[in-house]
Amino acid sequence: MNITTIVYILGWILRIESAFLLLPALVSACYREPASMAFLGVSALCLLTGWLLGRRKPQKLAFYAKEAYAVTALGWIVMSLFGCMPFMLTGEIPHFVDAFFEMVSGFTTTGASVVANVELLSHGTNLWRCFSHWIGGMGVLVFLLAVMPMVSGSNLNLMRAESPGPSVGKLVPRMRYTARILYCMYFALTMAEIVCLLVAGMSVFDAVCTAFGTAGTGGFGVRADSIAGYSPAIQWIVTVFMVLFGVNFNVYFLLYARHFREALRSEEVRVYLGVILAATVLITMNCFDGDLTPEHNVRNAAFQVSSIITTTGYATVDFDLWPTLSKLILVLLMFIGACAGSTGGGLKVSRFVIAAKMLIRHLRGYIHPREVRAIRFEGHDVGEDTLRSMFVYLFAAMMIFCVSVLLVSLENQDLVSTVTAVAATFNNIGPGLGTAGPTSNFAGFTVLSKLVMIFDMLAGRLEVFPMLVLLYPLSWRRTVRAERKRMARHGR
Amino acid sequence: MNITTIVYILGWILRIESAFLLLPALVSACYREPASMAFLGVSALCLLTGWLLGRRKPQKLAFYAKEAYAVTALGWIVMSLFGCMPFMLTGEIPHFVDAFFEMVSGFTTTGASVVANVELLSHGTNLWRCFSHWIGGMGVLVFLLAVMPMVSGSNLNLMRAESPGPSVGKLVPRMRYTARILYCMYFALTMAEIVCLLVAGMSVFDAVCTAFGTAGTGGFGVRADSIAGYSPAIQWIVTVFMVLFGVNFNVYFLLYARHFREALRSEEVRVYLGVILAATVLITMNCFDGDLTPEHNVRNAAFQVSSIITTTGYATVDFDLWPTLSKLILVLLMFIGACAGSTGGGLKVSRFVIAAKMLIRHLRGYIHPREVRAIRFEGHDVGEDTLRSMFVYLFAAMMIFCVSVLLVSLENQDLVSTVTAVAATFNNIGPGLGTAGPTSNFAGFTVLSKLVMIFDMLAGRLEVFPMLVLLYPLSWRRTVRAERKRMARHGR
Repeated sequence: MNITTIVYILGWILRIESAFLLLPALVSACYREPASMAFLGVSALCLLTGWLLGRRKPQKLAFYAKEAYAVTALGWIVMSLFGCMPFMLTGEIPHFVDAFFEMVSGFTTTGASVVANVELLSHGTNLWRCFSHWIGGMGVLVFLLAVMPMVSGSNLNLMRAESPGPSVGKLVPRMRYTARILYCMYFALTMAEIVCLLVAGMSVFDAVCTAFGTAGTGGFGVRADSIAGYSPAIQWIVTVFMVLFGVNFNVYFLLYARHFREALRSEEVRVYLGVILAATVLITMNCFDGDLTPEHNVRNAAFQVSSIITTTGYATVDFDLWPTLSKLILVLLMFIGACAGSTGGGLKVSRFVIAAKMLIRHLRGYIHPREVRAIRFEGHDVGEDTLRSMFVYLFAAMMIFCVSVLLVSLENQDLVSTVTAVAATFNNIGPGLGTAGPTSNFAGFTVLSKLVMIFDMLAGRLEVFPMLVLLYPLSWRRTVRAERKRMARHGR
Repeated sequence: MNITTIVYILGWILRIESAFLLLPALVSACYREPASMAFLGVSALCLLTGWLLGRRKPQKLAFYAKEAYAVTALGWIVMSLFGCMPFMLTGEIPHFVDAFFEMVSGFTTTGASVVANVELLSHGTNLWRCFSHWIGGMGVLVFLLAVMPMVSGSNLNLMRAESPGPSVGKLVPRMRYTARILYCMYFALTMAEIVCLLVAGMSVFDAVCTAFGTAGTGGFGVRADSIAGYSPAIQWIVTVFMVLFGVNFNVYFLLYARHFREALRSEEVRVYLGVILAATVLITMNCFDGDLTPEHNVRNAAFQVSSIITTTGYATVDFDLWPTLSKLILVLLMFIGACAGSTGGGLKVSRFVIAAKMLIRHLRGYIHPREVRAIRFEGHDVGEDTLRSMFVYLFAAMMIFCVSVLLVSLENQDLVSTVTAVAATFNNIGPGLGTAGPTSNFAGFTVLSKLVMIFDMLAGRLEVFPMLVLLYPLSWRRTVRAERKRMARHGR
């Protein structure tokens, strides 16, 4: 492991965070809140630490896979450790584990909160919570890539470690420009939502925070009843933008580059929209309430479906009270998740599409045993390597999920609360069912459960492997020693 | 699809079933029950139908994969259709769907029952229910292989379709002898259990039925309280034999052939025993009841753990009342299942071991990117084909599970009952939690749910693909038409 490079990158991550922290400091200052000093202070601390860590520049900024994965995992942890300081300094979330939980939930765009009533928080804190969704949605290392020159090849490793999905696509040949284009599109789409929300009559502060929460598919809001209290028009706007931010950003690039036909042909987006439509129809029928207008029924279903499949986690109704079929559909959507290359979490639609194609190929194999066919997805052959790592990812996700559920079950809550609390944090959604439901919060869980869920949120957002590489003891052994040991084992 | 061969084999399956039906007829006659006539009548009907179907012998008894899979699925359905007739004729389970459910549950060694009190059933019916576990445990096609000469290669296809696990091992070069050896070991082990139970003071009838239920890892019993009413010694005997029948039968063959070292080195069996031990310790600690003796606490935990991981489904306590951690451990064990090549169900321990090795290989890949290593299991390299089909199997199982859960949820039972009812039938266990718990039965589910669970039991026992090949429309299209269509599509 190349420690110098890792430390250097961590320094840069902290310097970027220091800049990001100025926004809540400014907003707090506008509202004349004492919190602004907390944000300014932590920003200064980030800058100082970042400067100390970044002093020794490595001779060549080259990354192998293991460094990229380790620095990504470490970067997210360090970022959250510093980011949660203002919560403690302002006394709004006094305990460290709670504050850290809230911050990790923010950066990983989970949106699970330990705060009982967000309306009592200062404007600065609320903005920082929502802004952290926006930062975490596209990823801070992608941001770093956009601004920092590196040895080519290194960028792809970093991008792969932070970006969700079975494979990483370059939009343009140079990774650096890819990262810039991604952030530009992300920024433009967020601005579009802010404008729409303002037109629909939202206040500036609420509009900015809600847009940040939607863009990162996070789910932190500034009202205790999430989005339920806003007008139907606003609820529809949020629904549409949740769906839009769950779309693979490659498709927006294709649209921008005027490749309309290619964009419309995206299999993943088609399946994604199809699932949203089907789930909305089913839930509307299953939950139909004659006392409400048909539009209201459809809106409730569409909002919740979009919120859960994109793993945002906003709510306009308490879906914990829905019939079993509708609740189960939501639980399944939690695992399906949004498109790869979007800001959403979950296992990603593309993995399901590719797996379904593998299943059909397998069945065809019984009928035409000698036929050999590659699996095509989005117009390209899917390599056997990608298929294998997809399987490994699925297995690792399952294992982490099961172990987490067992650990959280130690506090002996009911089965549904335990399982959905882990599902909601691991898939970066936010609310689950039962005591983890949309009208409740995560403050009541024990410290152990919170630590487990902090790990799950990070593992879910970074798609498991960075966290596992970080924890895998062999990653940290000196290369020579590891090699010698390997030799010895092979010779045995 | 070679229809002639399929019909011919179905004829043979029915002839074998006709012979099997004589056992309950005989037992019924001994107890002077009118049910004996029902069993005799259905036996005659099986013989007649079997004779009619088997009249046209195909010129060459050769099997390709698709025929093997289709005939396996069809064979199990036809066998259950005929096998459930006595239940209806005696009036003990009057409705067709209920009777069919009970029979499929028997042959697939699930042990989920629609009967509220089995003590009211006739001896013949109870014996037939338990005997069906024994038949289904090792498989009726494996039995057929042992007695019928076929073109070599065909046997392997048939064996692969019916036997559980990621890959099928031959014990001896000729498949026919492999099948015979398997049945001999199966018979010997069952006899051993009967003797042990008799020595422990069980009545002959109870001992035979319980041994059949254990051997097939089924779970049907002859008492309303399952095994709870028997003495501690009997409970321990059943525990030990459940564990033994969950072991890969290859290991017994190795022991028989005096390859002790190889037998002890079986990774799958080691992990399997390790999981049982760990789960027993955890549950004993989690459920410890000071009012009971330590032996009683350990016995309760060990019995339930062995019963669930081997997917037998016997119970000595109502584990639905256990704390959340213990319940969750049981739910996880449901999915892990027993060893491949045993009579148990579930996903099989070997698949988890292989998947874990893939995960470790993947993590090593980040550290030594140029290292290429095959995955070794039980002393052999695991082929990429096996890995791929393992993944496809896992995905197909997940999909069937999810769709089934959604369909069963239409009756709006609570989440836990819905999910565990499907888990318990799909993994061929029997009892789940909630309304499907060990003190309840499946009679209360709607016809739709029962049909879904019938499909799940068959799909679970036959490991998904035979049922999917049967339902896959392309399997039934004439080869020429299919080929033409394929050509046309490729030319496009």
